[in-house]
Amino acid sequence: MSVSLLEDAELQLAVRGLVPEGDAGEALARIVWSVIVEPGDGDAGALIEHRGARDALSLVTGSIGRASPPQWKGRRFEEALARWKPRATREAVLDAVRGAEQVRATLLIPGDDDWPVSVDDLGHHAPILLWVRGDRRALISPPRVAIVGARASSGYGEMMAAEFAGDLAAAGSVVVSGGAYGIDGAAHRAALRAGGSTVAFLAGGVDRAYPQGHRELLRSIADTGAVVSEVPCGTAPTKWRFLARNRLIAAVSDAVVVVEAGWRSGSLNTAGHAAALGRPLGAVPGPVTSATSAGCHRLLREYDARCVTTTAEIRELWGDGAGAVEQTPREDHDRTRVLDALGSRSVLTTAEIGRRSGLSPERIGALLGLLEMDGEVRRDGTGWRRATARSR
Amino acid sequence: MSVSLLEDAELQLAVRGLVPEGDAGEALARIVWSVIVEPGDGDAGALIEHRGARDALSLVTGSIGRASPPQWKGRRFEEALARWKPRATREAVLDAVRGAEQVRATLLIPGDDDWPVSVDDLGHHAPILLWVRGDRRALISPPRVAIVGARASSGYGEMMAAEFAGDLAAAGSVVVSGGAYGIDGAAHRAALRAGGSTVAFLAGGVDRAYPQGHRELLRSIADTGAVVSEVPCGTAPTKWRFLARNRLIAAVSDAVVVVEAGWRSGSLNTAGHAAALGRPLGAVPGPVTSATSAGCHRLLREYDARCVTTTAEIRELWGDGAGAVEQTPREDHDRTRVLDALGSRSVLTTAEIGRRSGLSPERIGALLGLLEMDGEVRRDGTGWRRATARSR
Repeated sequence: MSVSLLEDAELQLAVRGLVPEGDAGEALARIVWSVIVEPGDGDAGALIEHRGARDALSLVTGSIGRASPPQWKGRRFEEALARWKPRATREAVLDAVRGAEQVRATLLIPGDDDWPVSVDDLGHHAPILLWVRGDRRALISPPRVAIVGARASSGYGEMMAAEFAGDLAAAGSVVVSGGAYGIDGAAHRAALRAGGSTVAFLAGGVDRAYPQGHRELLRSIADTGAVVSEVPCGTAPTKWRFLARNRLIAAVSDAVVVVEAGWRSGSLNTAGHAAALGRPLGAVPGPVTSATSAGCHRLLREYDARCVTTTAEIRELWGDGAGAVEQTPREDHDRTRVLDALGSRSVLTTAEIGRRSGLSPERIGALLGLLEMDGEVRRDGTGWRRATARSR
Repeated sequence: MSVSLLEDAELQLAVRGLVPEGDAGEALARIVWSVIVEPGDGDAGALIEHRGARDALSLVTGSIGRASPPQWKGRRFEEALARWKPRATREAVLDAVRGAEQVRATLLIPGDDDWPVSVDDLGHHAPILLWVRGDRRALISPPRVAIVGARASSGYGEMMAAEFAGDLAAAGSVVVSGGAYGIDGAAHRAALRAGGSTVAFLAGGVDRAYPQGHRELLRSIADTGAVVSEVPCGTAPTKWRFLARNRLIAAVSDAVVVVEAGWRSGSLNTAGHAAALGRPLGAVPGPVTSATSAGCHRLLREYDARCVTTTAEIRELWGDGAGAVEQTPREDHDRTRVLDALGSRSVLTTAEIGRRSGLSPERIGALLGLLEMDGEVRRDGTGWRRATARSR
């Protein structure tokens, strides 16, 4: 089990190769953690913060006392162990390390010179590590601006994404996106054409080209910028991992711009994370008659996004630096109000939650994103409900 | 001169016909005022408020003592007299009355049952009277929503204007607009087609079809709704009167929606008045690549307009009734700050005024509209400057 993993000579040697100058023990512990948890697991984040990655891992295996974080109920820890333990195999960890070696991915862990500290704004949801193909310094080179949007984009949206990303990259900004078809691809390509730097955050391992049709594009991105993921090599993208990946795009960026998005586009999830983190959020308007702009208009209406129509207006977004919003007592308080509003069984729309909780729709949107990440709430059709013990 | 005008038997008789049950003396005094001042003359408004329309008129002719409002400097009153007196002729007043009779326009003055009290939010800039062709109750029938926009509109804008105006009119809203080509015309026509009520505010007299090409449309509007103006019959529209007319569209409406507008469209002036009056303001987004949507995006960015994409979203604008904003000490104070920022000679952009005064761009935009109305500031190229004594 985990402790023996940390003492496994072959694993230790392999990891030593990945971090020739760093703390190989810490690196191996974090790699094990990244193998056994899903991204954004707040329980793991809390435990690691409480005990450090190595001790926390020993806690999981039971080799040291059950000193769980004081704020935890015992049941919560039991449930976490139940979902982590089955994945803690030597083969899984070795696959992750070997996979990274094969594609020459490098490892970033907190404390590294190149660790993008802005992701620490995610608190317990911060990534445990990051795998990088390409230039790891792209993640800390300012300014970084996320240009994201719908996969099912229109010619209009792709044109705008290309214009903005090209101008920004040419002027030295790092263009961050999700490597997807549509807006993301248009943004990455324009940044590359402009001779600039661009970063793609993937929902699966950095050794897997997803989507397949972007194999060449992702290779080009890694050549001059970076392809990044928090999940181990060999990991397939899942819906959850896309949602979790979106929080990294928001956290690592100085501003997030949604170019085109449908009414329920995943880009709204990225935007929600940006709002929760206090990252400036821009939305590009489009024709009311275009379904691919409906999400952008929703951001203008419900998320207090700034309407951006030119590259100069995008640059203004981070001009006077809205800082990161830490989780404050107010946030704890508001989370409670949202959960109270949901009750135990009801499925409610954001508007209904607003009426019950007295919080603004933007605030609720941001909190639901975090609560979903915590497994406290789940989407259900057009609304939200509390996660049950089983679903959580 | 004016006093003899009030005692002129022919004028008295003619006005009696216009207000069979009302106060003919008050009506005649206000008609004289409307003949001698340009719309929105704040000095006239202050004087009338101070002394009543009849006494104020006597003041102007000098037949009673020069008891000017205490807050006035003597010079200001002299200047006002100098611009009012030359217009105070019996012929001009008789022309106004006869012109109204010919097109069967009715007269509305403050205190009438049908007087739209919402225009009194304009304070000293409130209209002295209103001439109405058609159903005067349309002006007080709620809800009234202004659908305005560029004359040089696109097919997209006209389609959206027609959709919104048609839906709103069909549901019982009064659609208010300016009778112009483009968006205004599309809104009026759709309201008529829907069998609803629509009101056109004109910059010239209600007896003049402007634009000429809308002669039939204006006639149709008067048949079921109302064609309204504060200037006497026979008066031609001027640039100033268009700007002044815009404040009435904003003041009489429960919400103002700009469907399409160029970067310097007159609709932004209407929007500025809406903001200054605390009327909910909506802007319809469009493609970033369309010059006719640039003004709408500007409203979203600089005027804190609400992004509206559906009729339901337009209805939400007046849902929880943002009330009128009276001119408060804060407003006086902020006007002073804007004038201070302008200094005596400089031409400044709104952004520069913002830096100097510490006021928000929206606030400045609203105040500049009022100050322009007061003749305190003038547009100069892309910026603003203080009006000189001569230009004022």
